[in-house]
Amino acid sequence: MTYHDHHIHPLGYAALVGGLDLMDARDLDDVLARVAAHAEKVTGPVIAQRLNDEGLREGRLPTATDLDPVTGDRPVLAHRYCGHIAVANTAALKLAGVDATTPDPPGGSFDRLPDGTPTGILRETAVGAVTSALAPLVPPPGDTEILDAFKQLTSMGIGSVTGIVSVGEPLWCGVADELGALMRLAPDLPIGMDVLVITQDPAALAAARETLERAGGPVGFRGLKIFADGSLGGHTAALHQPYADRRDTRGVLRLDAARDLSLAEAALEIGGTVAIHAIGDRAVDEVLDLFTELIHRGAPSHRLRMEHASLLTDQAVERMAELGIVASVQPAFLPSEATWLEKRLGPERMGTAYRFRSLLEAGVRVIGGSDAPVELPDPETGIAAAVHRHGINPGEAVTRSQAEALFLPPS
Amino acid sequence: MTYHDHHIHPLGYAALVGGLDLMDARDLDDVLARVAAHAEKVTGPVIAQRLNDEGLREGRLPTATDLDPVTGDRPVLAHRYCGHIAVANTAALKLAGVDATTPDPPGGSFDRLPDGTPTGILRETAVGAVTSALAPLVPPPGDTEILDAFKQLTSMGIGSVTGIVSVGEPLWCGVADELGALMRLAPDLPIGMDVLVITQDPAALAAARETLERAGGPVGFRGLKIFADGSLGGHTAALHQPYADRRDTRGVLRLDAARDLSLAEAALEIGGTVAIHAIGDRAVDEVLDLFTELIHRGAPSHRLRMEHASLLTDQAVERMAELGIVASVQPAFLPSEATWLEKRLGPERMGTAYRFRSLLEAGVRVIGGSDAPVELPDPETGIAAAVHRHGINPGEAVTRSQAEALFLPPS
Repeated sequence: MTYHDHHIHPLGYAALVGGLDLMDARDLDDVLARVAAHAEKVTGPVIAQRLNDEGLREGRLPTATDLDPVTGDRPVLAHRYCGHIAVANTAALKLAGVDATTPDPPGGSFDRLPDGTPTGILRETAVGAVTSALAPLVPPPGDTEILDAFKQLTSMGIGSVTGIVSVGEPLWCGVADELGALMRLAPDLPIGMDVLVITQDPAALAAARETLERAGGPVGFRGLKIFADGSLGGHTAALHQPYADRRDTRGVLRLDAARDLSLAEAALEIGGTVAIHAIGDRAVDEVLDLFTELIHRGAPSHRLRMEHASLLTDQAVERMAELGIVASVQPAFLPSEATWLEKRLGPERMGTAYRFRSLLEAGVRVIGGSDAPVELPDPETGIAAAVHRHGINPGEAVTRSQAEALFLPPS
Repeated sequence: MTYHDHHIHPLGYAALVGGLDLMDARDLDDVLARVAAHAEKVTGPVIAQRLNDEGLREGRLPTATDLDPVTGDRPVLAHRYCGHIAVANTAALKLAGVDATTPDPPGGSFDRLPDGTPTGILRETAVGAVTSALAPLVPPPGDTEILDAFKQLTSMGIGSVTGIVSVGEPLWCGVADELGALMRLAPDLPIGMDVLVITQDPAALAAARETLERAGGPVGFRGLKIFADGSLGGHTAALHQPYADRRDTRGVLRLDAARDLSLAEAALEIGGTVAIHAIGDRAVDEVLDLFTELIHRGAPSHRLRMEHASLLTDQAVERMAELGIVASVQPAFLPSEATWLEKRLGPERMGTAYRFRSLLEAGVRVIGGSDAPVELPDPETGIAAAVHRHGINPGEAVTRSQAEALFLPPS
């Protein structure tokens, strides 16, 4: 069997392989010790990945105040493992020019003290304000390091991937020019790679397509990737009703219907697929509205993909089947979220989570990915999780062969 | 559920909807009567489709000698339903300049009397010699007729298709300029359509891609379609051992490894998929060799597709899984071939036929199509056939939901 990872951030994964992974840190002291040790090994800003507050004894994210004593004037940015939240120390905030007077960017926010001072916790698009300042100073992983990471994928039985690559603002920090790195390495790539491009600029998308088509090697343009919301872990996935453990928020809807409709049409026009990240039930419904409008305007339904599709009402499942759009799911989220998902959602909404079986039974085309570096990329993890469910909404378990089929090549 | 037909000849299907369908003719007299009646209704050459000698009482194809008395000087071309064989009357042969002195074209042959006179039966590329002479004289189906045919597809639950379209020499006659017709109608198309282009010319392929990208509407370029062999019905599928009912032939291998390797590389270079028709076990093995070489040279395995993959040894199934290529199958072939397949293959080889279950169990990505106008395009026919098998190699039956999944959208 040769697997395909339908949703992976290849350069983010390469940065993780050679970088600082905080996933199994025990508590805040452990986080600080690892950051300090890593700072000794690298030059420039210290970038950490897969920070997981739910796995820390304290059950909370660190703030700049926690980080500053061990990091001093070295800028530090620790990405939460969902990729939608990060924590900056004071040196990093300063470098990015973020202070009490900085307004929240559209589609994101800085956590603040009562006097407006940023705590260092950055949500959604606010992460970008700091990554863009730090990225030029971070020595990117070397080409050998990146290729080694891709070779690791082949050893997991992965023959090809749908790789998500950003242009302009880097998504994960670490590789400032993701597309450029990919282009340089394309002829030597040990795996096939169709590329979904993260951008909000139709001209940049068209340019990325031209670039990818000149790449050589097993690399090709696949389409556009945009975001309708954030993550459940970070309380930024857009819900219809407030979070059970934070009644003050329903998450962050990042979709802008007018802008994203014309962006999607630009992608379709150049032969691209449109993949939209939607995790919360509210984001899912908004994306279904957008897809309905696109199909009404003549878009081919099979080139519309919803990424994650984590919380689905019965009606959403039905609409996906009727529209004929594709559901791109990440079963490896289940073991990661098993200990805290019900806290976020409360018991009633657990029945809407990760409805793989319902999607298949409704006749939706479902494909599987790891979302690495959010999760590790071994397809076996995702396959096992789709079968075993780790206690999350167990009626939605699928058979082993259904789970394997999620990770077969696209066509 | 919204279906995708992964292998359909959309313009051939449109020509069938408005044209002469001989599939259920009882005997040669019935064929002749239908041809004569259709000749009254149309101007120019008379084109018939889905001629099925296995369904005729006489169990043989008509020849020019049979056709001439009822058709006189009107050129007639009746396509066998497999699309790989056709019968021309004397007027059609004359128009095409085919006579006893005409040599067989590469990859095809004219059936002949002992003195070399063509009988009218044309095999593989020899069909093209007559279609290219007749096509300019055949009034193409009108735009409304073509759009009506596509609307019929939506009424069968089909939301999108992978459409196979020829450039240059028309495959089915009836629509001389398939790509041109598609371009004209693209903005009004009621279904999404990814296009696989039949050509042997890299420049024509690149030009077709440019054309398709300007098409507008839900139409996009998908890649290249070429042929490694013919059909089992017509004794032209390439077998390792002779046909059981014609010990003098092992079929016609149409693959030219050097030419097709460079053609495939040209398709991959412009972001295309490479889809190769392979029905017989010998053609399958040759295509697997070609795909192995392409992957060795760095091709992305998930953009390599084998069309039909009808006769597979255990080793071929394993190789497909290992290589990570895609199997594109047509379950509706089973009911059509149920009465005669064992005659062609003999009992031993029946175990290699249409191994849908083995492919799925080996972890091959399998997709389903109708091959319309070869078969009718209702996905329900294919789904039922994949489950019920019509007596062909019944151990390879799949479940209803596995069968439905074959016809889900690509991604």
